[in-house]
Amino acid sequence: MEKLREVGRPVVRVDAYDKVTGRAKFTDDLCPKPCLEAKIYHATIGNGRVVSIDTSDAEKEPGVVAVFTCFDVPDTCYPVAGHPWYADSAAAKRDQADRKLLDDRVRIYGDNIAVVVGEDTVACDRALKKIHVEYEEYPVVYDALESMKGTNPPVQDRKPDNIVAHSLARTSEEDLARAGYKTVEEALEDPKYHHVKIHAESREQSQVHIETCVSYCYMEGGKIVCVSSTQIPHVVRRVIGQALGIPWGDVRVIKPYIGGGFGTKQDVHYEPLNAWICKQIGGRCVKLELSREELFWDTSGRQPKTFDIECSYDDEMNLHARKIVAYSNTGGYVHHGHALVLNSVNSFRWLYHTQEVATHSEAYTIHTNGPHTGAMRAYGVPEGNWAAECLMGDIAYDNGWDGVEFRLKNVYTDKFVDEFTPGGVIAAHTCGIPECVEKGKEYIEWDKKKAEYANETGPIRHGVGVSFFVYKTAVAPFALETATAAVTLNQDGSIQLQMGATEIGQGADTVFSQMAAEAIGVDTEDVHIVSFQDTDVTPYDSGAYASRQTYVSGTAVKKAGETLRRKILDYAHYLHPSAQGELCLRDHKIFDVVGNVVCTLPELALEAYYNLGAANQLHAHETINVHTNSIAGGCTFADVTVDMPLGKVTVNKIINVQDSGRLINPKLVEQQIHGGMAQGIGYGLFEELQVDPKTARVLNPTLLDYKIPTTMDLPDLKADFVEKPDPTGPYGNKAVGETPAISPAAAIRDAILDATGCKFYVEPMTPQRLFEGFKKEGLI
Amino acid sequence: MEKLREVGRPVVRVDAYDKVTGRAKFTDDLCPKPCLEAKIYHATIGNGRVVSIDTSDAEKEPGVVAVFTCFDVPDTCYPVAGHPWYADSAAAKRDQADRKLLDDRVRIYGDNIAVVVGEDTVACDRALKKIHVEYEEYPVVYDALESMKGTNPPVQDRKPDNIVAHSLARTSEEDLARAGYKTVEEALEDPKYHHVKIHAESREQSQVHIETCVSYCYMEGGKIVCVSSTQIPHVVRRVIGQALGIPWGDVRVIKPYIGGGFGTKQDVHYEPLNAWICKQIGGRCVKLELSREELFWDTSGRQPKTFDIECSYDDEMNLHARKIVAYSNTGGYVHHGHALVLNSVNSFRWLYHTQEVATHSEAYTIHTNGPHTGAMRAYGVPEGNWAAECLMGDIAYDNGWDGVEFRLKNVYTDKFVDEFTPGGVIAAHTCGIPECVEKGKEYIEWDKKKAEYANETGPIRHGVGVSFFVYKTAVAPFALETATAAVTLNQDGSIQLQMGATEIGQGADTVFSQMAAEAIGVDTEDVHIVSFQDTDVTPYDSGAYASRQTYVSGTAVKKAGETLRRKILDYAHYLHPSAQGELCLRDHKIFDVVGNVVCTLPELALEAYYNLGAANQLHAHETINVHTNSIAGGCTFADVTVDMPLGKVTVNKIINVQDSGRLINPKLVEQQIHGGMAQGIGYGLFEELQVDPKTARVLNPTLLDYKIPTTMDLPDLKADFVEKPDPTGPYGNKAVGETPAISPAAAIRDAILDATGCKFYVEPMTPQRLFEGFKKEGLI
Repeated sequence: MEKLREVGRPVVRVDAYDKVTGRAKFTDDLCPKPCLEAKIYHATIGNGRVVSIDTSDAEKEPGVVAVFTCFDVPDTCYPVAGHPWYADSAAAKRDQADRKLLDDRVRIYGDNIAVVVGEDTVACDRALKKIHVEYEEYPVVYDALESMKGTNPPVQDRKPDNIVAHSLARTSEEDLARAGYKTVEEALEDPKYHHVKIHAESREQSQVHIETCVSYCYMEGGKIVCVSSTQIPHVVRRVIGQALGIPWGDVRVIKPYIGGGFGTKQDVHYEPLNAWICKQIGGRCVKLELSREELFWDTSGRQPKTFDIECSYDDEMNLHARKIVAYSNTGGYVHHGHALVLNSVNSFRWLYHTQEVATHSEAYTIHTNGPHTGAMRAYGVPEGNWAAECLMGDIAYDNGWDGVEFRLKNVYTDKFVDEFTPGGVIAAHTCGIPECVEKGKEYIEWDKKKAEYANETGPIRHGVGVSFFVYKTAVAPFALETATAAVTLNQDGSIQLQMGATEIGQGADTVFSQMAAEAIGVDTEDVHIVSFQDTDVTPYDSGAYASRQTYVSGTAVKKAGETLRRKILDYAHYLHPSAQGELCLRDHKIFDVVGNVVCTLPELALEAYYNLGAANQLHAHETINVHTNSIAGGCTFADVTVDMPLGKVTVNKIINVQDSGRLINPKLVEQQIHGGMAQGIGYGLFEELQVDPKTARVLNPTLLDYKIPTTMDLPDLKADFVEKPDPTGPYGNKAVGETPAISPAAAIRDAILDATGCKFYVEPMTPQRLFEGFKKEGLI
Repeated sequence: MEKLREVGRPVVRVDAYDKVTGRAKFTDDLCPKPCLEAKIYHATIGNGRVVSIDTSDAEKEPGVVAVFTCFDVPDTCYPVAGHPWYADSAAAKRDQADRKLLDDRVRIYGDNIAVVVGEDTVACDRALKKIHVEYEEYPVVYDALESMKGTNPPVQDRKPDNIVAHSLARTSEEDLARAGYKTVEEALEDPKYHHVKIHAESREQSQVHIETCVSYCYMEGGKIVCVSSTQIPHVVRRVIGQALGIPWGDVRVIKPYIGGGFGTKQDVHYEPLNAWICKQIGGRCVKLELSREELFWDTSGRQPKTFDIECSYDDEMNLHARKIVAYSNTGGYVHHGHALVLNSVNSFRWLYHTQEVATHSEAYTIHTNGPHTGAMRAYGVPEGNWAAECLMGDIAYDNGWDGVEFRLKNVYTDKFVDEFTPGGVIAAHTCGIPECVEKGKEYIEWDKKKAEYANETGPIRHGVGVSFFVYKTAVAPFALETATAAVTLNQDGSIQLQMGATEIGQGADTVFSQMAAEAIGVDTEDVHIVSFQDTDVTPYDSGAYASRQTYVSGTAVKKAGETLRRKILDYAHYLHPSAQGELCLRDHKIFDVVGNVVCTLPELALEAYYNLGAANQLHAHETINVHTNSIAGGCTFADVTVDMPLGKVTVNKIINVQDSGRLINPKLVEQQIHGGMAQGIGYGLFEELQVDPKTARVLNPTLLDYKIPTTMDLPDLKADFVEKPDPTGPYGNKAVGETPAISPAAAIRDAILDATGCKFYVEPMTPQRLFEGFKKEGLI
């Protein structure tokens, strides 16, 4: 691996000092105080229609400025997912527009039907209690398979069968014929092979970021200005424009530091409503902040899904044919729609396939009256991974095979190109899985512990488990991948870097600074990144999601940096026409081809600003388009203690090893991995948004009842890497931001299986489910 | 004059609505509250040295956070004038660095020797009273000619003779020889000609902007952020860097809307001290706002000056030779230095010269213990104009000539090139003076009123007067003229415009929007200008001064707009390769050469952002260099009533007519003229910062004692124009921002002369001076 100067350096986060000292400004810090507050009135039924709303008592409440209901807002539907738009209005790729600012059709428990604006939250809360609503109620359906049978009325009128989308990718008849089969099912049931079929389930996980969803809006310069805690400021701008029916240029969105997003903030939630309210009340500043409780039911958690999977395999550990059918419960609204479950089934297909002759991946996204769902870290893949690895774990266990060996035999290689995506864009240009596995096995002492734990008896047992994972990088070719970056040379020779891509706590600002420094030829410490985004002045970028920013936006940084370096060297040539040959920039100096110093960078910078003949503020603004997509992968190994009577699993050791190509900043990546592993462990063991199937009401919308792992609940989280530079990434990098959340759940499941022989198919594996499982198997 | 679409339209100011409704945010509106406050401790002597400061009592005051004195700050001198910097450290052009954050050397009454930081201003004020200072006192000198004789110690050590600069431009010996003279004096005293010599004086005028000088600073991202009410954000950034000895890239300056500047805010005042304090107290937010009283003595008013002028002329109204010697009292600090008085004597030279054979212009800038002075609207020219027009008025009056005819005979023409500026850069490419005069005469009914008022007697008399003026545009070739503008195409086809040049109330944002619209081919209403400047993201520009922005920064807007239009049309060609010939953009559509619509601009914009093959955020960022300078000119006519016993002058009618080339926005220019005329009338009749010559203390630092004209004090102000497009301006425009403040004082003086025969040489012509003048002449 070629050595780079700035890329690969474990520099301290550029925002570390401000975040540690409390200087960093978040949305609420910036909000002028006092300002008006807005609070939502949520429906108290799970399905129905608002017949009438009486707000007269609420309006009389002291301090109330205005009350608006679903009958006051424009009858405009708009899409909310954080995706790029499509110029072609006929394109099916445009996200479905099924949201209104407030809606008289109640599709989910807590749906938004009115809003109160008051001088403070006390006034709002008092007024909310005085709103009287008359409903027409319909039966509630929360089960996706039940909902597919149809409801009257349907959840969304445009989907009479409640099916948002159905997709199917399967081996072609020609390919099947070459293998001697007519159908995938025939290959699955070929008696020469073993056949196994399971049903797996994953439940809704909540993102639980520290900073709630909050925005404030005011009018200025004829524009609506919306300051919001979002991952996607440019998308928020567009959606406010769409929702209010005003030109997008009349909207300005500012994104300060944000206290976590994890996908929640890849949706546009209340910014359009807030903007609309602001306009109604004459442009006064109004804040809309969700409570912790609202966050649980009213932002978009990880979709609950069920999977039917089957597979045939031979005695040599080779998979022969596989099939997955996934059912995703998107709740009352589409938001990210079918893309999530597609990721679930695609990742199933990508991870193991080497020997396969037949594959079938099918997916349904279904409306119910459940909470609307959306993007969450790893976007559908942890669910698919759970199902796929349940299957792999079972086969290895049932056959007495080493789970690592079995997986390695079938896992993708660097030759892998997904034949089902157009143009073969999704491909593993490199694959470090075997090396990852070596590291993981060594850390977890795989062979030693396997032997040690083999013959345990009694109520407390130990096990080791493994899970592999795969993840693509960014969203090409499914959606647009473009990004813009701008760099400017300052008077002192330092660099100003402006990105449309967003820092959401992951360290994006730091890696962009490193990449800019690398491309220009300066030190990371010389780069000043503008952390906030302001759509009035910020280059365009669709935002933080899909592990895309370092790969896609990083490509823009690299290009802009290279352009600026070229301009710097050209200006040096202009100032020093006699300098010999091709110039180069390093150590803050410009050298000619024979190694003489032509001038220093600060000298050149000062001249560029103040030259009496040809002053020129050196600047580069570059948009790039990315048409590639690269598979990243890795594995998790876990060592657990299972206390069966208590239904308690203790993770003793856990390691995540991954090949994400070249690491831009190893220290930051390690921190990313730690966070992702924590979310993965929570996902596997206890994080579950519980929904009452009768009312579709969320039962545990508090941090007391919805448990997330704290450091008290976690073992030492070990992260390790295999760096195989990816030829398509700007500096050999590929996905890393979301990947660590994928495989911990399945690795723990595999370790529990190893410890107890008990097969769990529903995650999270809560004490209740574990207890019931062990009980059923007669182990306790 | 070629018709343009957007340039020349009297569009409503882009900030009108926000400013009228109070939505527009100024510095103090944005400052987080509560925040720390800083207040200056001012010296109570006019000349001396601080021996010691006891702050122990002050520090004990509740709510006091810190007290810093002149003994705590870095021993670093820095320059404060709002001028571009020079890369060459040997360049004499760099502004003199004679300011320290706090200084133990007291040069002026009220000099800054300590600062208190408190939780509120009450705490600060209490603490200020408990600071005990021991001084070593020196004699005070306020008279410039007195000061030139030398003081011990000198005001500034580096200028032992108290002379900041002396300059002389006179007709060369060769040219004199051709006219038959050896010296200019010989030409002046040639007995074949009449000879006249006068002494004129102009006093200090204060800018009196509504918003005081205010800034607040905090630290973020390793930077010092300074939000300030300034005309020159990029200069403030540089000077904070210089004053604190930190890299300029570590400073971020933000300029919101400002409530007037008029030149005060072309100096860097307390931003460096504020930034330094902020750093000392750990980056906490601290505000430093000057009181109205401080503004009068501690920001830089118009330099007081004295002039000795003489001239010879013949019976045919031809000027033969002229000489001016000017003495400028810059006070204790240099600030803008000698540039101001150079403008006084240069404008004297430029205005009348056609028949001249000999000219002599000489100027001194002198340190005294008077208040420091600096830029004020029209930068030295009103003073020179006062002196020059006193002379012209006297000659016309004494010879019974028509003052208009006499001036027209000698005024510059469109052939004028100033031979004393290098390269002949300063030149009148066009001259509309004769046409201006026609309009002015007609409005004021010159001939009719001259006759009507001719033979008045008694204590109340009437008169009409005239004054011509001249002004250059921007500062080439004396200093760098460069500007950068950036434009971006929004998704909806609207335009985002970003300028380093500043809106300071004059309407810059509106005219830039119009010029951008013109260059791109859209409507002004399609342009969204970013009004605030933020040195982190704003293109470089040295700021608002010297009537430069529409001329220089406008050139950058035009270039950036043309580049963006080119990119839009190229992108249209990319999308529609079969479109015929050269494309063009108008009416929000792109047309081919035969007039077919290729696509609409919004369609193209959407494609540019979201095209799956080649998305490209279309953007242009252009720096320009301006090496030209254009003379603008015009005249003022006034009709006055003089009540001699009361010493009261009532301006009945007044008109300003000027040739500023093409007007970008006639409505805005008219408003500019109104404001400038008001300042000119105040300058002529009552605005005077009174300084006690014994202590150098300002005697009238309040709005009660320093009178500015309100609408109650003003007649209907009439503005008119002659539009002769200038070939060097981006759209034929030249200076207009400062010009209207130049000539009203002299026109009123001329009208008083017409009414009473009394010659006044000291402005302002206060009731006291008028009364004394009339008394002396035996008129009352």
